[in-house]
Amino acid sequence: MSFPVSSFPVPREDRYFEDYVPGSVHDCGETSVSEDEIVEFATRYDPQSFHVDAALAADGPFGGLIASGWHTASLMMRLLADHYLSTVSSLGSPGVDELRWVKPLRPNVPLRLRATVADARLSRSKPDRGLVTTRAELLDPDGDVVFRATLLNFLHVRGTSGS
Amino acid sequence: MSFPVSSFPVPREDRYFEDYVPGSVHDCGETSVSEDEIVEFATRYDPQSFHVDAALAADGPFGGLIASGWHTASLMMRLLADHYLSTVSSLGSPGVDELRWVKPLRPNVPLRLRATVADARLSRSKPDRGLVTTRAELLDPDGDVVFRATLLNFLHVRGTSGS
Repeated sequence: MSFPVSSFPVPREDRYFEDYVPGSVHDCGETSVSEDEIVEFATRYDPQSFHVDAALAADGPFGGLIASGWHTASLMMRLLADHYLSTVSSLGSPGVDELRWVKPLRPNVPLRLRATVADARLSRSKPDRGLVTTRAELLDPDGDVVFRATLLNFLHVRGTSGS
Repeated sequence: MSFPVSSFPVPREDRYFEDYVPGSVHDCGETSVSEDEIVEFATRYDPQSFHVDAALAADGPFGGLIASGWHTASLMMRLLADHYLSTVSSLGSPGVDELRWVKPLRPNVPLRLRATVADARLSRSKPDRGLVTTRAELLDPDGDVVFRATLLNFLHVRGTSGS
């Protein structure tokens, strides 16, 4: 599974709002999750039978154990934090739009994160920062989208702050 | 912090699509998260400094350690699974709309989940199920919304399946 990608001009340690160029597409690496991790996460946060009990899950709506959707989202977040978001200018996120669990996530399926900068606009009220809109997609080895979401992130403009 | 609530006519073990009545408001109990849990979750899934390092967080954009937004969402999910979603008719979720982290979540703040059934409609293509739209809000002791999201859930209609 590969796709055309752009490169960031600078590493995460020197990345600011203006480095997120609308239209650019970024490969944010790969992850996967084991059955044990799926059960552990869901036991704490989402104890529905198809997330925590392989035997019940086999007879359930998905025909087997699948990850909690919030676990899938959290796995995406780790790839974003490691490969996409700045370590010096990130100001957090106001939210996410249109989050979709398109395909059930089963254990040990490799997922690759594709992040496309959909929009980037300076704040009118706070000129030291801007809002970046990112279309994030987790792709399986067939190239199918397993999870997608539209992410919002505030970042400092270069030279304004954020060490 | 209290609000007017409705009661489900039946417990989660006998709850089906038609028990989610548009306009009904449900109290789904309380949760909170410790500093240790915030750091543990974020170390695995969202290792940004304001989630994993109290000293760096104190000088960061939030003036202290806050939970990863995906941790907050996962805490909401646990309350939904324990108090709202059926254990017999749940068919999973296609996604979430307009997820918003309205206030930073700091350690040990009690959060109460209010779930309002916004819409419930039968599937046209699969008459054994319906789609319930839920407005979920985590409220702090001041009654402020800390987190909100619009959730989509498929559920079996009573008597069709799902035992």
